Amino acid sequence: MNAYEIIVKKRDGRELSPEEIAFMVDGFTEGRIPDYQMAAWMMAVFIRGMNPAEVTALTATMLASGDTIDLSSIPAVKVDKHSTGGVGDKVSLVLAPLVASLGVPVPMMSGRGLGHTGGTLDKLESIPGFRVSLSEEEFKRQVSEIGVAIIGQTRKLAPADAGMYALRDVTATVDSIPLIAGSIMSKKLAAGPDAFVFDVKTGLGAFMASQAQAEEMARVLVEIAVLSGKDARAVISDMNQPLGRYAGNALEVKETIACLKGEGPDDLMTLTYEIAGMMLEMGGKAGSIAEGKDLARAAISDGRAAAKFAEMIAWQGGDPACVDDPSLLPAAGQRFDLLADASGYIARLNALEMGLACVELGAGRSRAEDKIDMGTGIVFHRKVGDRVEEGDPILTIHHDRGDISSQIDRCRKAIVLQDSPCDPYPILYKIVDKSGVHSCF
Amino acid sequence: MNAYEIIVKKRDGRELSPEEIAFMVDGFTEGRIPDYQMAAWMMAVFIRGMNPAEVTALTATMLASGDTIDLSSIPAVKVDKHSTGGVGDKVSLVLAPLVASLGVPVPMMSGRGLGHTGGTLDKLESIPGFRVSLSEEEFKRQVSEIGVAIIGQTRKLAPADAGMYALRDVTATVDSIPLIAGSIMSKKLAAGPDAFVFDVKTGLGAFMASQAQAEEMARVLVEIAVLSGKDARAVISDMNQPLGRYAGNALEVKETIACLKGEGPDDLMTLTYEIAGMMLEMGGKAGSIAEGKDLARAAISDGRAAAKFAEMIAWQGGDPACVDDPSLLPAAGQRFDLLADASGYIARLNALEMGLACVELGAGRSRAEDKIDMGTGIVFHRKVGDRVEEGDPILTIHHDRGDISSQIDRCRKAIVLQDSPCDPYPILYKIVDKSGVHSCF
Repeated sequence: MNAYEIIVKKRDGRELSPEEIAFMVDGFTEGRIPDYQMAAWMMAVFIRGMNPAEVTALTATMLASGDTIDLSSIPAVKVDKHSTGGVGDKVSLVLAPLVASLGVPVPMMSGRGLGHTGGTLDKLESIPGFRVSLSEEEFKRQVSEIGVAIIGQTRKLAPADAGMYALRDVTATVDSIPLIAGSIMSKKLAAGPDAFVFDVKTGLGAFMASQAQAEEMARVLVEIAVLSGKDARAVISDMNQPLGRYAGNALEVKETIACLKGEGPDDLMTLTYEIAGMMLEMGGKAGSIAEGKDLARAAISDGRAAAKFAEMIAWQGGDPACVDDPSLLPAAGQRFDLLADASGYIARLNALEMGLACVELGAGRSRAEDKIDMGTGIVFHRKVGDRVEEGDPILTIHHDRGDISSQIDRCRKAIVLQDSPCDPYPILYKIVDKSGVHSCF
Repeated sequence: MNAYEIIVKKRDGRELSPEEIAFMVDGFTEGRIPDYQMAAWMMAVFIRGMNPAEVTALTATMLASGDTIDLSSIPAVKVDKHSTGGVGDKVSLVLAPLVASLGVPVPMMSGRGLGHTGGTLDKLESIPGFRVSLSEEEFKRQVSEIGVAIIGQTRKLAPADAGMYALRDVTATVDSIPLIAGSIMSKKLAAGPDAFVFDVKTGLGAFMASQAQAEEMARVLVEIAVLSGKDARAVISDMNQPLGRYAGNALEVKETIACLKGEGPDDLMTLTYEIAGMMLEMGGKAGSIAEGKDLARAAISDGRAAAKFAEMIAWQGGDPACVDDPSLLPAAGQRFDLLADASGYIARLNALEMGLACVELGAGRSRAEDKIDMGTGIVFHRKVGDRVEEGDPILTIHHDRGDISSQIDRCRKAIVLQDSPCDPYPILYKIVDKSGVHSCF
């Protein structure tokens, strides 16, 4: 076996064996295969693709390059949830305590904001004192004791991913479904869950802009999870406009608390209940997704979900009082209301542009070393399909800057008004399970 | 402009501008673009391809990376010929003096043997004293005075090619038509001719195994020559079996001399006259290809072509007496006749295997530093379509080794006999000119 022949095989569109994939990934990670051969191979993978068996082998190799967390001492079926990323996407924050409060452990390994999208870890760190870097022992103990923990990736998990990602980043091979799926799954599997729900975003503010790409990604993620011996489902959900009404770190924690108290907006709660239903069904606590949704609604009504969130915050060093009193969370000093310059219906609220505006306001990072302004962000008073009268505020920018004229301009251009009524966007497009792709309409 | 965006563009199958192609090639040659980005880009070029305008720009950039020879002081239309390589292909050796003897200058820059194929330079060096390394001044003077010179590539011509080839060699991007065409044409154009005939080989012993690949290569070579302001034609010819009856360096010079004296075998002479006709027509010495063929036949009949070959040998330091007395050329000490083990018709005489057998006998190099045994090779007494009786010699191996059992075995397996008569292979399949591809049947 040699790198040259493996490159030829993929270049010509043929299937690679698990041994061949391991030869490339391990060889590169361990310095035996030079970066130019890995670059040529990854470009061939990008263009020619990989089938589910190949992506599963890729995942397994990347997983085996590092440590894995063994949660088998926790007897229940542990379920994780992963989103491909969006703007205003705080579903993980609501779901993790909600599902855990109903007896399904959620060992969640999350990420930071990337590009125009927010990150669960950054949002949690807006809670004073909250620690996302737990040791493996702390993580296991917390999942065992209270059923939920949300932590960052440790360096020892899937180290092959770091070197491959750095090379993909400079050779234009980032946006490859097999390579993204291998990267996601190797890290997700390392944290030890038994089952997964993937929330694959599609639309203007999603990494998978087209529904076809999103569907392909969802299918691949479910297939490789199943081929890796795990249970899995996926939803394909809207990211043409921001999810919910708040975007920005502390702002999203505030909306999370509202959701957990039964005051969440429709789009966000529809998606949250759908995924919660799946997780509860996979975790064996509900006989069906519908029953799982009912259980989830009850756990929110009776305060169990909010209490679990406070418990998780306390365990991870944060101040749980913020759940009762969200004013304890950081807030920006200034507000700017963007007013409608005409009456009409909101036809577009471009999630990508809104996300970029948030990054420019300090809610995200332009460079890895940037510090985040936890209180900044945008609150949306209207969503697509809503009627607005001239002079009404469409959104409010929360900031701590002198001049935000370029951000205001960006937000204004991201909004399209029209005279005739238009439908709101659906939130759920499709559901993917082992049996295939199912439309939600 | 940056490398990343140029990689993305080709990765997604879009056309690159001449500036973008120059940015990559010059940047890589001058060390600004790292090898992993060049590797990813060349893999994208391999898989996505390049259109003729792109290959022309690639050629121009590679050409501009080094010196070019200015032959404009020689007033005639100078015509070069290039073969993509084969076994027993001594057409260049016959053609160059033949065409030059009729007043069309042939400034020919040739190559060494590659893999299982022979090289014009190696063959010429079997002539005692022959020098293929002329200075640019010597080359120009010889072409000007006697109308023909065959030399090796100098290091200063198209240096971009060397770095790109070394990287292609380890990243499985060698067999790419645009990259091969750019490599060939940048070196060919550097030698200064005004017109080209390309002999693109197809079949078992050719680098372009399929006719479709050969046709694509021929079209691309003609198109980029024309887009570079030159006249060009191509033939697609057979390389399923060795060309002519001799393979091996001194053996092929002997067959060349026979051809120049009017004793060449049919397949070799048919191809030689076809290309000679084209070169004489393009050089303005014949009104049509048919007239050019007649002129060429006359120059062989009356000895002008053979005399020109002797003159070229003398000018390049070789012993011209070998034209009259080929026994002055090196010869192997031993002969082995491979006899037919049954009666029948030759259905296959695999050129690739015969070429590999020649390399193993010392007629070619397995490694760049290998020395060639000039006298070794194979003489074929029968070709495809010929009848053979049990015990007749099919071929004779000329060698200087003790044990050639593995070479004998290779040759034996490369021959297929059948009971029923079979047609000889055609030698010419197609002709390509500016107006398109024309079948020869």
